[in-house]
Amino acid sequence: MVTSTRSERPRPWRSAAALPVRPVPARQPESDTASRRVPLAKPSPAVPWGDYRPKAFVGEVVPFVVTSFREGHDRIGVQLRLFSPSGDESLHRLDPLEDGFDRWRTEVALLEQGVWRFRFESFGDEFATWEHAAALKIAAGVDAALMREIGALLFDRARAEKDRPAAERKALATAAASLRDAGVDDAGALEIVTDATIAGFFRQRPVMSLVTLGDDLELLVERERAGVGAWYEFFPRSEGARRLKDGTVKSGTFRTAAKRLPGVAAMGFEVLYLPPIHPIGTLNRKGPNNTLDAGPGDPGSPWAIGSAAGGHDAVHPDLGGLADFRAFVRAARAEGLEVALDLALQAAPDHPWVAEHPEWFTTLPDGSIAYAENPPKKYQDIYPVNFDNDPAGIRAEVLRIVRHWVAQGVRIFRVDNPHTKPLQFWEWLIRTVNAENPDVVFLAEAFTRPAPLQSLASAGFQQSYTYFTWRNTKAELEEFLSQLAHETADFLRPNLFVNTPDILTEYLQYGGRPAYRIRAAIAATAAPTYGVYAGYELYENVARPGSEENIDNEKYEYKFRDWAGAVERGDSLAPFLTRLNEIRRAHPALRQLRNLSVHWSDDDAILVYAKHLDAAVSPDGRSDTVIVVVNTDPHSVRQTMVHLDTRVWGVEPGTPYEVEDLVTGATWTWSDHNFVMLDAFTEPVHILHVKESR
Amino acid sequence: MVTSTRSERPRPWRSAAALPVRPVPARQPESDTASRRVPLAKPSPAVPWGDYRPKAFVGEVVPFVVTSFREGHDRIGVQLRLFSPSGDESLHRLDPLEDGFDRWRTEVALLEQGVWRFRFESFGDEFATWEHAAALKIAAGVDAALMREIGALLFDRARAEKDRPAAERKALATAAASLRDAGVDDAGALEIVTDATIAGFFRQRPVMSLVTLGDDLELLVERERAGVGAWYEFFPRSEGARRLKDGTVKSGTFRTAAKRLPGVAAMGFEVLYLPPIHPIGTLNRKGPNNTLDAGPGDPGSPWAIGSAAGGHDAVHPDLGGLADFRAFVRAARAEGLEVALDLALQAAPDHPWVAEHPEWFTTLPDGSIAYAENPPKKYQDIYPVNFDNDPAGIRAEVLRIVRHWVAQGVRIFRVDNPHTKPLQFWEWLIRTVNAENPDVVFLAEAFTRPAPLQSLASAGFQQSYTYFTWRNTKAELEEFLSQLAHETADFLRPNLFVNTPDILTEYLQYGGRPAYRIRAAIAATAAPTYGVYAGYELYENVARPGSEENIDNEKYEYKFRDWAGAVERGDSLAPFLTRLNEIRRAHPALRQLRNLSVHWSDDDAILVYAKHLDAAVSPDGRSDTVIVVVNTDPHSVRQTMVHLDTRVWGVEPGTPYEVEDLVTGATWTWSDHNFVMLDAFTEPVHILHVKESR
Repeated sequence: MVTSTRSERPRPWRSAAALPVRPVPARQPESDTASRRVPLAKPSPAVPWGDYRPKAFVGEVVPFVVTSFREGHDRIGVQLRLFSPSGDESLHRLDPLEDGFDRWRTEVALLEQGVWRFRFESFGDEFATWEHAAALKIAAGVDAALMREIGALLFDRARAEKDRPAAERKALATAAASLRDAGVDDAGALEIVTDATIAGFFRQRPVMSLVTLGDDLELLVERERAGVGAWYEFFPRSEGARRLKDGTVKSGTFRTAAKRLPGVAAMGFEVLYLPPIHPIGTLNRKGPNNTLDAGPGDPGSPWAIGSAAGGHDAVHPDLGGLADFRAFVRAARAEGLEVALDLALQAAPDHPWVAEHPEWFTTLPDGSIAYAENPPKKYQDIYPVNFDNDPAGIRAEVLRIVRHWVAQGVRIFRVDNPHTKPLQFWEWLIRTVNAENPDVVFLAEAFTRPAPLQSLASAGFQQSYTYFTWRNTKAELEEFLSQLAHETADFLRPNLFVNTPDILTEYLQYGGRPAYRIRAAIAATAAPTYGVYAGYELYENVARPGSEENIDNEKYEYKFRDWAGAVERGDSLAPFLTRLNEIRRAHPALRQLRNLSVHWSDDDAILVYAKHLDAAVSPDGRSDTVIVVVNTDPHSVRQTMVHLDTRVWGVEPGTPYEVEDLVTGATWTWSDHNFVMLDAFTEPVHILHVKESR
Repeated sequence: MVTSTRSERPRPWRSAAALPVRPVPARQPESDTASRRVPLAKPSPAVPWGDYRPKAFVGEVVPFVVTSFREGHDRIGVQLRLFSPSGDESLHRLDPLEDGFDRWRTEVALLEQGVWRFRFESFGDEFATWEHAAALKIAAGVDAALMREIGALLFDRARAEKDRPAAERKALATAAASLRDAGVDDAGALEIVTDATIAGFFRQRPVMSLVTLGDDLELLVERERAGVGAWYEFFPRSEGARRLKDGTVKSGTFRTAAKRLPGVAAMGFEVLYLPPIHPIGTLNRKGPNNTLDAGPGDPGSPWAIGSAAGGHDAVHPDLGGLADFRAFVRAARAEGLEVALDLALQAAPDHPWVAEHPEWFTTLPDGSIAYAENPPKKYQDIYPVNFDNDPAGIRAEVLRIVRHWVAQGVRIFRVDNPHTKPLQFWEWLIRTVNAENPDVVFLAEAFTRPAPLQSLASAGFQQSYTYFTWRNTKAELEEFLSQLAHETADFLRPNLFVNTPDILTEYLQYGGRPAYRIRAAIAATAAPTYGVYAGYELYENVARPGSEENIDNEKYEYKFRDWAGAVERGDSLAPFLTRLNEIRRAHPALRQLRNLSVHWSDDDAILVYAKHLDAAVSPDGRSDTVIVVVNTDPHSVRQTMVHLDTRVWGVEPGTPYEVEDLVTGATWTWSDHNFVMLDAFTEPVHILHVKESR
């Protein structure tokens, strides 16, 4: 088997099944039908929602799968031909899944950003067909001489192939001669049929018939951060806000908020997402707890964008100026943090757009502009944009705004409620921005039904919020995590935020501190991207009664939090979050999306999953396996047997191997059936690293 | 609601949701994206296996389903535009399934043979959006005047549409005036908002915005027999065969076999399938029970085709000549039976092809022609065709043969082992034959894995054998029948043969007479096409030891059966089969494929399903519902509660209705929960007709 490490110049991929690149034969079987000679169907990666490109991120291990079969008993082979954006051509052999569904699969780690092209190629595998028949027939004494001559002719044909190494050609000549040598008995011939070296020649360079080409397909590979990252969200106005003697609050600024950056970085986060930083509307501003009438000192919701101080291209005067923002971005970068901005395409009634472009809103028969509403409720601090009155004008304006922030150093946008704007608009915007700068990443906050959520992801969003916060039981999580890793991974990259300013689930409200630990551990290990909104580490769990939202929501007021004091008192989850992020950095298996496998326990609350990365596709050439065992019931101590399909990480069932708990440092000898006890109040989660046993 | 019965000339469809045909607006929203303005995704009918046309049969009720949604809260509508092969254009409204997945659905019975075109069209539904908001807001006293004026403007707009009937325009003018009349209070306005007549105007002729067109798609509608039929299979050589005094057998002929036609017709069968009728090879002919050496009197397997007497275009001299065959076809037709021939593309060693076209086979290095084999087993009575040596020559020859039999009056071919020949070949053959004669039907005998089985169906086969004989338990059948009716019905039409000369399952071997009754009842009611191989009605259940095949298989010898005597003695299933076929004729719901719903029982062997046809799509304009309750355990008497979702046939849960057992004539008053007792030994099945309760 050739891996990328063997080749001389660096390859833009890693694979366990790379083959020498050989051209496609000049002639393929004629085709005047939709069917192909050796059928190739249901290729993936693929997007079921329309004519969109599937996607991956740099370093992602992508499964390439296709259905292929042929008539009768003859054996086939399937290979994947890959072209990297810069033109590197490679060939990878697929293995049959042998599950009765004629699926073939290989996996390749893709290391180059841009649009890859790929094509499946199927063929009659002449050696495999002969090997199968010859082994059975010679052993049974049926047609032995004939099978020997057929093999010799096949070896002759292989020898004639110009690109076959000389040593291999020589070995094949010797083997062909032996097959024809009456002095070699059938037992000796059978040894040649089953010779592993010869089989290796034909696996590397199969002798093919009926070569059939699948469609030319594309796969968009985006930068690693599109798929991998630990996110943290804070309101810059709260960071450094001070209550003055007169009871009013002096807002935090970019300068004061920058002082929090080292703390966020020290926890190991990689992306810092800021709610909107723009001027906030004064007309119909919301007060604390979403009340209708703001007092004079109430800062308002950052999502009510725009005032006399400016709109989407401006910075809220309380936070500073554009130069302060740029300095904040630089300071973050120096800490290893990338800043993500919010993109909320809506306007406060005093947004400059309203006067300058009333056509971007809906004007009612009475001449007023329509507020956002969910009838009969109205949201009088927000005008929604009407994208159909002047589509070209709105496109140009939003593109101008995005370019403006890109020019300030921003490469990530968290898009507010994209599902309330046309899908077409987002496809156009992301395509246009990425054509100028492929590094720009858009995260869709589309808490909506599966069809629009998945369609937005398909149309271009690099990341998506998901239903994660509402998937809390073992059964829910098994289904949900499997779906993320396998069913939707070709087009949807989840960002598993554990909480947001809008979401404080009942699980967190009533689960106590164990709930916070459990959810963070799952989010950080189950998907390569996850996020935490500030306050989570302080176990802020009091909701506005009857809601799934924090009381005294930070959207409408300043928050004063004592980060360091909480750590000192032992009242902070920050050390655990820090450890989770360290584990994520140390374990490349956790920086993959599609490598999750669900395993089993006898307890209805103990969730078990593993993430595995094969050595051949791992960045450091070493296999990495992490097993996560979680007590999803935050109110209990549970003990159970855990059942693992250890073959997923290459360990034969029944073989013992060492595991190390990456949180506690404890080590155990595990096998495929193991006892665990998880006390939600002290240690609700095992994050176990499988020590390489070979 | 307009149905086809209202229109003046006969429509080539029936639908409960037909709309007046209105043209598409000249301008649709611009689209420079893969996304559409009001997205339309995952349309069906569709074929997942490649670029093939989905299919239906004349009279089939086809569900048309698509995913559609739009941003925000505004309401959308979805319609289906259908063009029949002869150019009839119709428009049908889809209803939202409201299952959270944004699926929309309607169903239409298609009555014209040929290629239909269809397109989904989505739009902003201006009335539905207003109605929803106005009802809530006026009732809540929010923006009442505004909502009234918006409604009045909408009614004005609708009134201006030229194709709206005058009475409707007048009513809309009155309503608009009332909405604007200060003398009408908000309670009065609310009555207009919720007025059913006005809602009906807008359902029939919606006022649309953002009209969005889906792709132009195609659906092949084939003749009714492609989808509906009761099949019977016999070996003509056995019908009228006589054992002579010297112990040899005189073969039956087409003339003697014709005497059996009235009996087959009397049982209610519609298609008579004959195993190959061609000359049988003499070289390496198989003897009784598949033994290697045939005696002089052994007739050989009809699938070992070809001898000095001729090949695939010839008739076995024992059966008669071509003229006798034509007379047999005519006699069958006179009895209401259509003859289906076998198409088995393989040759006995003495087939004329072998000498004339050795290139159509595989010649081995020793100069011999390769036998069929499953290594290390060889089948020395058969040479398989090699389709790659001379594809054009083989295509021409097979087309010649099919045309030859079409010229003799044959319109149905049962294709032997199509999965051992290239998929491409079948797509080409069926397309080419159907271009000349769209009435020709091909049934695929592909007992193979799902991918090739479903691909053959997708590539053109009108019907397919399935795994039915190996699906015997309640759980297996629930899954299997649901899949046939829903998941694969767009491309695969099952022919539920209960037995074949090759298949005598353990269920039949060991289930006694009840097993025969049970399997026939399921086959005849669960799918519109099913089949019986002669001898089933005599409960022939002795297998060759260790096999799932009849002992003394008719493939290798003559069979002598006393049809009438068995009936007289009460030892025949023929009366029950006759009744099943009568029920099938009387109940159009049983002549549909996609209308099966699985219901529930508390017993692990009692299977419950229903087939329902709405009045609007039924040929006689009357609703038809048949409930089938089967004890799948042939060794037991079972009693249980049966639980029905009666809404499927339009009965509110809890409402009583009358059912009649179509086998025994018993009647009961049923509701949604009902007691049943099924004695496998006397009455293992209820086939219940729901009496129209309205």
